[in-house]
Amino acid sequence: MSRERLYLFDTTLRDGQQTQGVQFSAPEKHRIAAALDDLGVDYIEGGWPGANPTDSEFFDAPPKTRATFTAFGMTKRSGRSAENDDVLATVLNAGTKSVCLVGKTHDFHVTTALGVTLEENVTNIAQSFAHIVAQGREALFDAEHFFDGYKSNPDYALECLHAAYTAGARWIVLCDTNGGTLPGEVYQITLKVIESGIPGSHLGIHTHDDTGNAVANSLAAVNAGARQVQGTLNGLGERCGNANLTTLIPTFLLKEPYASKFDTGVTQDALKGMVKVSRMLDDILNRVPQRAAPYVGASAFAHKAGLHASAILKDPTTYEHIVPEIVGNARIVPMSNQAGTSNLRSRLSDMGMDVEDTSALSRVLDRIKLREAEGYSYDSAQASFELEARREVGQMPSFFDVERYRATVERRRDSRGRMSHLSEATVVVNIGGERHLSVSEGMLEDGADGGPVNALSKALAKDLGPYQGLIEDMELVDYKVRITQGGTEARTRVIIDHEDGQGRRWSTVGVSSNIIDASFEALLDAILWKLVRDGAHALGAQ
Amino acid sequence: MSRERLYLFDTTLRDGQQTQGVQFSAPEKHRIAAALDDLGVDYIEGGWPGANPTDSEFFDAPPKTRATFTAFGMTKRSGRSAENDDVLATVLNAGTKSVCLVGKTHDFHVTTALGVTLEENVTNIAQSFAHIVAQGREALFDAEHFFDGYKSNPDYALECLHAAYTAGARWIVLCDTNGGTLPGEVYQITLKVIESGIPGSHLGIHTHDDTGNAVANSLAAVNAGARQVQGTLNGLGERCGNANLTTLIPTFLLKEPYASKFDTGVTQDALKGMVKVSRMLDDILNRVPQRAAPYVGASAFAHKAGLHASAILKDPTTYEHIVPEIVGNARIVPMSNQAGTSNLRSRLSDMGMDVEDTSALSRVLDRIKLREAEGYSYDSAQASFELEARREVGQMPSFFDVERYRATVERRRDSRGRMSHLSEATVVVNIGGERHLSVSEGMLEDGADGGPVNALSKALAKDLGPYQGLIEDMELVDYKVRITQGGTEARTRVIIDHEDGQGRRWSTVGVSSNIIDASFEALLDAILWKLVRDGAHALGAQ
Repeated sequence: MSRERLYLFDTTLRDGQQTQGVQFSAPEKHRIAAALDDLGVDYIEGGWPGANPTDSEFFDAPPKTRATFTAFGMTKRSGRSAENDDVLATVLNAGTKSVCLVGKTHDFHVTTALGVTLEENVTNIAQSFAHIVAQGREALFDAEHFFDGYKSNPDYALECLHAAYTAGARWIVLCDTNGGTLPGEVYQITLKVIESGIPGSHLGIHTHDDTGNAVANSLAAVNAGARQVQGTLNGLGERCGNANLTTLIPTFLLKEPYASKFDTGVTQDALKGMVKVSRMLDDILNRVPQRAAPYVGASAFAHKAGLHASAILKDPTTYEHIVPEIVGNARIVPMSNQAGTSNLRSRLSDMGMDVEDTSALSRVLDRIKLREAEGYSYDSAQASFELEARREVGQMPSFFDVERYRATVERRRDSRGRMSHLSEATVVVNIGGERHLSVSEGMLEDGADGGPVNALSKALAKDLGPYQGLIEDMELVDYKVRITQGGTEARTRVIIDHEDGQGRRWSTVGVSSNIIDASFEALLDAILWKLVRDGAHALGAQ
Repeated sequence: MSRERLYLFDTTLRDGQQTQGVQFSAPEKHRIAAALDDLGVDYIEGGWPGANPTDSEFFDAPPKTRATFTAFGMTKRSGRSAENDDVLATVLNAGTKSVCLVGKTHDFHVTTALGVTLEENVTNIAQSFAHIVAQGREALFDAEHFFDGYKSNPDYALECLHAAYTAGARWIVLCDTNGGTLPGEVYQITLKVIESGIPGSHLGIHTHDDTGNAVANSLAAVNAGARQVQGTLNGLGERCGNANLTTLIPTFLLKEPYASKFDTGVTQDALKGMVKVSRMLDDILNRVPQRAAPYVGASAFAHKAGLHASAILKDPTTYEHIVPEIVGNARIVPMSNQAGTSNLRSRLSDMGMDVEDTSALSRVLDRIKLREAEGYSYDSAQASFELEARREVGQMPSFFDVERYRATVERRRDSRGRMSHLSEATVVVNIGGERHLSVSEGMLEDGADGGPVNALSKALAKDLGPYQGLIEDMELVDYKVRITQGGTEARTRVIIDHEDGQGRRWSTVGVSSNIIDASFEALLDAILWKLVRDGAHALGAQ
């Protein structure tokens, strides 16, 4: 089969910016544009020059990309010529090689939202495209509400498309603006457009995820013949978001019939950077990455069910639709009460523990199940899991013993009559028979009270005698709390993440009816894991 | 057109539990089952009896549901009869009306993962279903890896289905276990299954979201003729999750051709509870709800683009594919200050506060925005919102003043050498010039330490003098903690729910760098709200 070119059009910087809570700065737009260019998309839509100060700043100093840099705008308004429409002029003055104009194709919108006649709208489309083509630009027509328009008045919707196409638009982009169209309709209506005389090689598809079908609708249009796909990284966009390019790109490159039929600008090598690009965007937006995202999510290749995990050990293709490394992702076999002994053995082996004794493995599994029933969760708290396994099979060194601790929180009026709060913690540890008493206040970098967990963490790490050198590069980086059973009598689960100077990050868990005690347990596990991993000499307690 | 019945099978409690980081307790499973039953799904799959302690506990005291409660298990193993397979026996002993067994249909899995002959596997399927049908149970066959199996060896994959169907299975469920199949293939292969002699009225579809097509694949199978759809609330599930029922249910009820063609067990009235059900699950899991989720996300009807927002004011259908209230959602339009205050006025009026002064309303809006920037959240904490508004407009009575409190947590070895922990709190309040000093231990009903928040709650409510009679029927029913900024220096947000003897339930919020202080703030607001609502006489402090 002869291969065809499929074009990728990214609108993260334009439609993606319509996401509630998203506002890119110009430098952030530059970082994202560079990443998109490295990935290999064909078009990067940068924004709407003149619509807001950030977009104007960005187009004043545009990124230098191999991808065709594109400005967005709208077709000229009624009552003036294309040459004299100042909104359109600002878009053209950005000087981009390519220009994408949105225009109406749904009769209801023309009369209700624009308030002009159907004929005027067609004229506005035709004259706008004639004008930008005359300036030597590549032109794209975002046919707004096209699918709804086609269902309302097919002849008129097609007339609008042809007005732009005849005027020289390179691409006619069929937009499901409200996101309510289902894949079967997208497929059928795209076929009708091609039948009307606009070849698929000039058709694009722009979908939204309001029914969870943005990806499927994009595929449906490609199946019908469209050859440009618009979308955003991580599916950013107005309301429920646009078609997710981090999902579509791997599908086009890895799945049939697309992989055999199409060439895109994305190489197999660039595909390996997919996870990284996705995380970079979340990083810029300070968003928690979606664990369950197709291909790029942290859980996308996590095998929790026991039957799955044991089969994965025999052959990963049993429960994986692609090899995770192809998109820069990795397999995870989390430990939990869903898992079996074969899974456990390999897990322990990864931790440097060789346990041949099957009865010992069963004991570890029983212990983990029991603890999970008590509220512990070892899916993410792998460090606590390792310690628990070591305790059960007698491979846990005795470094020190915590004899007691006390944490106090007080709130009172200060000398100026204002309420202030203060935390303090005392910890007594026994190391090789020697007692170490430490005390610390809860104190943040800005001098404010950091609360009792902060105070306990500081007190515990203040004087561990001979171990002190090994723990000084530890830093608490995340702290999560949840109640595992509702109500006052609930048990509290605390998960704490630490990092160290070697760049390692590990999670520990504590469970108790007392939130401070649960936190202390997780803090203690964090130190013990670090000592085990760094091979500290066990001095024990007396 | 005569209407057909489409059946909904929920597997939130089984496949949803395979989500990384998800571990339901038995009481949580009961809450979710009750919500699913109210929603109107036809089947609720509760878990795998015998697979772990939680599932065993849940099946020991199963929920009473109108929906068919279903136990999950696997087909019998080779080398023993169905009657003598202890894993299968445990599933049957759960005594559910319906039983769903997973079995292999992909030749590669039979030989690689199971390590048995193709014939043995067919025998295992046939005998397992004959056995459960003989016991009078409704039987479902989860045909694992069916689509991959069909592509590898269509005759064998179909033979496996027919073995179960002939043995009396009510439903043959086509599973895209690895989630790698695309909608076009699902449609074609489902047609082939029907051609082979299993009618669509006996076919189910079970999809995963590994290519972002779980919803579209479910629709494709229904388009081909399948009449049962399996999925989970919020798309929970192994790896990238299962088909999302909170997306599919509105689509089946509201979108053509489904709305005109099918009846389901979900009424239009129940559909209005969709957002609430979705939030309840996130709440149980302590997950941040996905803003961009189709239909139910907080951003699903948020109109940020200026052109969209102005058209929405003329006619909401211009940029909305459905009316948000139909699924219990609401439109969000970035509001002018004017619209903001009129909205606020009606909200305060609902709380029994009449505020005519527009500048006071603006001050309340500013204050709420400022507090939300500090980490407060008033979406659910309506009681704290009301108190904050009262403070700003000078309508907050002065009941009493908390002069100081202290909370202590200690852990030490008891007389028998075992570690135990103990919490204690002291609170000093000034009521009308009189100081009340109260002390309490943290103590649960079973006598165990309940931690410092429990101790503070008890101490605060121990002696409020003349108010004591009004607060004695208050009960703390939920306690949630979230870190609003990552890292050690994070601020902690605590949300506490209370109920009283009149059946009212209210939520309050506290934010602090100190988790105990944040909890105390929320506890205090809870009492103040109760006093306001019950019209307590304000004695003030001195």
